Amino acid sequence: MTRIYDRVALIGLGLIASSMYWAIKRGGLVGEVTGYARTEATREKAREIGLCDRVCDSAAEAAEGADLVVLCVPVGAMGAVAEEIAPVLKPGATVSDVGSVKRSVIEAVAPHLPEGVHFVPAHPLAGTEHSGPESGFAELFDNRWCIIVPSDEDTDAEAVATLRALWEGMGANVDEMDADHHDLVLAVTSHTPHLIAYTMVGVADDLRRVTDSEVIKYSAAGFRDFTRIAASDPTMWRDVFLTNKDATLEILGRFTEELFALQRAIRTGDGDHLFEYFTHTRAIRRGIIEAGQDTDAPDFGRGAPRK
Amino acid sequence: MTRIYDRVALIGLGLIASSMYWAIKRGGLVGEVTGYARTEATREKAREIGLCDRVCDSAAEAAEGADLVVLCVPVGAMGAVAEEIAPVLKPGATVSDVGSVKRSVIEAVAPHLPEGVHFVPAHPLAGTEHSGPESGFAELFDNRWCIIVPSDEDTDAEAVATLRALWEGMGANVDEMDADHHDLVLAVTSHTPHLIAYTMVGVADDLRRVTDSEVIKYSAAGFRDFTRIAASDPTMWRDVFLTNKDATLEILGRFTEELFALQRAIRTGDGDHLFEYFTHTRAIRRGIIEAGQDTDAPDFGRGAPRK
Repeated sequence: MTRIYDRVALIGLGLIASSMYWAIKRGGLVGEVTGYARTEATREKAREIGLCDRVCDSAAEAAEGADLVVLCVPVGAMGAVAEEIAPVLKPGATVSDVGSVKRSVIEAVAPHLPEGVHFVPAHPLAGTEHSGPESGFAELFDNRWCIIVPSDEDTDAEAVATLRALWEGMGANVDEMDADHHDLVLAVTSHTPHLIAYTMVGVADDLRRVTDSEVIKYSAAGFRDFTRIAASDPTMWRDVFLTNKDATLEILGRFTEELFALQRAIRTGDGDHLFEYFTHTRAIRRGIIEAGQDTDAPDFGRGAPRK
Repeated sequence: MTRIYDRVALIGLGLIASSMYWAIKRGGLVGEVTGYARTEATREKAREIGLCDRVCDSAAEAAEGADLVVLCVPVGAMGAVAEEIAPVLKPGATVSDVGSVKRSVIEAVAPHLPEGVHFVPAHPLAGTEHSGPESGFAELFDNRWCIIVPSDEDTDAEAVATLRALWEGMGANVDEMDADHHDLVLAVTSHTPHLIAYTMVGVADDLRRVTDSEVIKYSAAGFRDFTRIAASDPTMWRDVFLTNKDATLEILGRFTEELFALQRAIRTGDGDHLFEYFTHTRAIRRGIIEAGQDTDAPDFGRGAPRK
């Protein structure tokens, strides 16, 4: 039990914030955690399940006097929240966030923050397809990566080190990266895969010659994996694509190029090209399992137990 | 324990055949199961782990005297195997298969089979990303669908009913469908999703500005789901795309069209279009979970336990 901050404010109480709260409690990392959510229903639910030591009725009330304020709202809402809390921020406090895009968050938030407040953006690479205040759990960040993206070269080293200690205390591994590289890496490992999954599910839903009931019944042959990703929060993902436009479009362009090459191999019957391509892609899977970033159990372990 | 066949031969001893063997034993469904695999190493491994009551050194030896012969080899190898076993097939025997494509298997196999042998193609929609004789387990087909595709309208009704009983005995739900519709449905629920997953993994691997080590470390943000699918058996998937060319290219065309529409929405900043699309795709996920075809546990249940 190492106390890292006396008071932390979580603005927005969805999957990430609620998991942070339970991870903070598990580690005894913070004296008091305040929370705020935009809708009355979410605040009531949070009070009911004991999420946060104190649930406030405005972002400013939650942020006042906090040593760390973490913006856990969709990327497109960060700027407005920063503007609202700016007047009450304590000198020397740190403002951070958990957004999936970093350059646009820096551009939206930084101009509002007063002199003497440290801005240290961050992005925990963890989540599930569930959302809302009840979806969080203390183990979400265990052995997952959190990328800290100092907003500029003058960012206070102590503020970065303290935020790093909090994330490590919540179970995460921490890396630092600049905002543009972060946004490109995430376009590859997260944003483009999500867009593709949404697209595939949309195509299946829209195809008149195959019924929805057939798609559902026969989904275990591969399709259902895409539907999990495509069940993620629509507001969050809309904002991700609108704010990480350039990197996503770049990776989509590469994706389409490769897809067309494979499509041509299918059309011309070039089995060697297909075989070589499909062999190559197995290596990355092995790397991910060796790095502890996924399970080696067949079908993610969700199937019936092995004999 | 209802005995459905006296003798069954499994030609090819990979994930599906080995799971069939364990499921047959679990249910006591067959008197004797013979097996054959092309490589000596696989046959030795099968003998070592007790896979099949008798492992034979040729497909013909395994098939001789069998009441049911199931071809469990890649789609592209079905024709040659059918030709090899044709001379030893018992009058009144049934030949079936487990291939992921049906029209081309019918075209490759049917011409070789002698008069008086029933041909009843089938396709169990189950699998994992693992392959080989050691990857099978008795529960693989539990509550999964097996599609029986009678090769023509004269297919013997009793032969179909008996094969259905075997699959039901192994835990599967059974549907019947014609070959062309099967191939289209699978292009949507399986073949195109696999090609897309392979493509996405290939793009990530090939991108010089993001290292493989970054892709691996940060894969939990969505990408790792694709790598599981893209770790499937390359030979099997090469054959699927070469033999279900038309349906796969049709669905890929639809996919590209949708992807371009979303890409344009990103480029023009059309948040309403994105939000509406992402909301719509959630419904299919709910349908799949309600139909018992996937788990509702976050992240397929592979993550840390919920508090």
